[in-house]
Amino acid sequence: MSRQMHFVAFLIVGPTSHHHGMWRHPESENRFLDPGFWETLAQTLEAGRFDALFFADVLTFYNDTIMRKGGQMSLLDPVPLVAMMARATQRIGLGLTMSTSFLPAYSVARTLASLDFLSGGRVAWNVVTSTADREAQIHGAGELLPRNERYERADEMLKICQDLWTGWSEGAIVMDKDSGRFIDEAQMRRTDFQGRYLSANGVFPVPPSAQGHPVIMQAGSSPRGREFAAEWAEMIFTLQHSLRDMQAFYTDIKERVAKAGRNPDHCKILTSVDPIIGETEAIAREKQAYINDRVDPELAVALVSSHVGIDLSHYPLDKPISDINAEAGSRGSMDVILQAGGLTLGEAAKRFATSELCPQVVGTAEQVADQLQVFFEEKGCDGFIMTPTEMPGSFESFTRSVVPILQKRGLYRKDYPGTTLRQTLQD
Amino acid sequence: MSRQMHFVAFLIVGPTSHHHGMWRHPESENRFLDPGFWETLAQTLEAGRFDALFFADVLTFYNDTIMRKGGQMSLLDPVPLVAMMARATQRIGLGLTMSTSFLPAYSVARTLASLDFLSGGRVAWNVVTSTADREAQIHGAGELLPRNERYERADEMLKICQDLWTGWSEGAIVMDKDSGRFIDEAQMRRTDFQGRYLSANGVFPVPPSAQGHPVIMQAGSSPRGREFAAEWAEMIFTLQHSLRDMQAFYTDIKERVAKAGRNPDHCKILTSVDPIIGETEAIAREKQAYINDRVDPELAVALVSSHVGIDLSHYPLDKPISDINAEAGSRGSMDVILQAGGLTLGEAAKRFATSELCPQVVGTAEQVADQLQVFFEEKGCDGFIMTPTEMPGSFESFTRSVVPILQKRGLYRKDYPGTTLRQTLQD
Repeated sequence: MSRQMHFVAFLIVGPTSHHHGMWRHPESENRFLDPGFWETLAQTLEAGRFDALFFADVLTFYNDTIMRKGGQMSLLDPVPLVAMMARATQRIGLGLTMSTSFLPAYSVARTLASLDFLSGGRVAWNVVTSTADREAQIHGAGELLPRNERYERADEMLKICQDLWTGWSEGAIVMDKDSGRFIDEAQMRRTDFQGRYLSANGVFPVPPSAQGHPVIMQAGSSPRGREFAAEWAEMIFTLQHSLRDMQAFYTDIKERVAKAGRNPDHCKILTSVDPIIGETEAIAREKQAYINDRVDPELAVALVSSHVGIDLSHYPLDKPISDINAEAGSRGSMDVILQAGGLTLGEAAKRFATSELCPQVVGTAEQVADQLQVFFEEKGCDGFIMTPTEMPGSFESFTRSVVPILQKRGLYRKDYPGTTLRQTLQD
Repeated sequence: MSRQMHFVAFLIVGPTSHHHGMWRHPESENRFLDPGFWETLAQTLEAGRFDALFFADVLTFYNDTIMRKGGQMSLLDPVPLVAMMARATQRIGLGLTMSTSFLPAYSVARTLASLDFLSGGRVAWNVVTSTADREAQIHGAGELLPRNERYERADEMLKICQDLWTGWSEGAIVMDKDSGRFIDEAQMRRTDFQGRYLSANGVFPVPPSAQGHPVIMQAGSSPRGREFAAEWAEMIFTLQHSLRDMQAFYTDIKERVAKAGRNPDHCKILTSVDPIIGETEAIAREKQAYINDRVDPELAVALVSSHVGIDLSHYPLDKPISDINAEAGSRGSMDVILQAGGLTLGEAAKRFATSELCPQVVGTAEQVADQLQVFFEEKGCDGFIMTPTEMPGSFESFTRSVVPILQKRGLYRKDYPGTTLRQTLQD
């Protein structure tokens, strides 16, 4: 079989995904607080054979404008929601975001491993180091560590998790009622890790899942973030503005993965896209203009501020974005903004807030399929993180119209290859 | 309507509840790793109109003997499991244990509030401070704080949670697509708490549930634990050996609750019982002897060691329990052991490991109902935490045979009074 595309749905428990006009679309149901909504959506995506869905996370409101205007926010902890969606589905992968900056490694390892076990081996952990001081403050942690130290801590957390997750050998549970022997302790390895930031000493109580342990996904795009991803990630998602940028990122990451001694095929690179589909190209373009006009300018600047980690609301909207000093904050997001080239703050903010500069792929279903095929075949990516502009309409439309075309072209699976997410990803 | 009994099922994601022979019963299915098992059990308990089920938790194996012999352990994080059980039921309360010793307050508050919201207001938090150094070590926390400081930290955590959980006023979510106004920030109160152990600064992102926020349950029995319970708990569970001990505990707690300025009726006291039901009294007694004989003596001593927080395995089994210095460790458990009076370590351990000294209520369904009625009417308790000796048989048998008798006597509800756990508890 030829190389196959991978698809992951970008979700968040709130009004906005990447597109900051989403909740204002006339057909957006905004039932993000209703577990039944998410269960049905998971079933829709599974019928469309998505590799996975995943929840981004925001640990508190980034700023007051984002709260007031309905920007990116998580109104619920995704962990219980993902557990519910696991029971409403059989095969689709279930990704969730957990920060490495605030919790003990064991606590993160235990929750993720438990969810992975209970879902039959379908969980992915989107590893983030967090970028907003507000997230630290609500955890009572004062300020975030400097970026490099955040990654050092993340490295330690991944090492502890991997050690805990591989502590059980085959046959550890004996469970012999007659003899009273429950566990064969010779099959259980103890973890003893003493790091600079994190430690764990003891025996991990969660048995390995059907896929062993959760898949690691990551989105860092600074040099340090890419290094981290090359070391750990089995699935990377990225925001790239053009095919050329996608290709540069793809080549760089695959080389880094190989240099880290891993098989580059075992690290899938998914690029973000925002498909807008119409019966005709003209209708699709009008739909695009309509939804992009739903983005509030004040919200757009607030969003960019939160992503780069500095308050931009006091700059005039016509200030060139390249004049703004963004040494602090999250490198990846600023890089993406700068890629847009020669824009003012106002223009860049508006573009950023439509789809955070990931390509809006606009046209008929055939045209959208064509464009995705180009990105994929020209080695811009191994597949796509799809972000919606209306909920759940964007995913319904895509799975009804584009997915069958890609399947017919032999670019996209018609069924899952196995039962676990790792099997699906490596297919 | 006369005063009504309350029932809560004691569960743990592992082979043993209180009774350390449980998993060795011929009819115990030991499907504790199968979410479908727990969903069906939740439905059984809901059909039996239990107020709630609740999961005890153990954050790692207390010791190697407990691991080897199948003592109390939690093989999965209960959080995702409870989420799944919430979706399989409509009315039953869902309790889970979270320690106050290892996580930031915000993280605990967010997970519990999210689960409470998603379950329609049915969650209870069993607040524990943790007693085993192993639990601290696997979290990378070295040693536990001294007992009194653990309670100080717990107090701070409860204060932060209550403040976060009450931050949203009515009508905070506006969600007006036309104006783009999503939240009315005037309806959102910020939390600013700076404690000795814990802090939180920011706006809580989880909306209030149908019951506002989770019910607080607690089991501390040391003087400091009782003080904490009087301050915070809406449901207290306790292990008492006899009606007289139950009555003393009941009176003491209700007085403390009143002294703390709360309505004593809003703090329900549930005492642990272990019903063993037979077609005749003789059959029930034989069943009792059979299951108690399934307790392994080595496991029994290991269990007592873990509960009092000191290693007793090097003492001879015939040493009088009263000669053992148990100043360290968990006061409550030791008190319960001492209540048994004049026993050797071996005898006490065996008794402790059968049902941790909570009464085994043995007989026909009528006799079991009679005994529970006495405990209840003589003001030993407001209801019962029921612990099983076989799974799921104990709960099936109880809901089929004893529940209808109690309902006929007007002592126990035939339906839930509302939709939330707090409504059920205050009924």
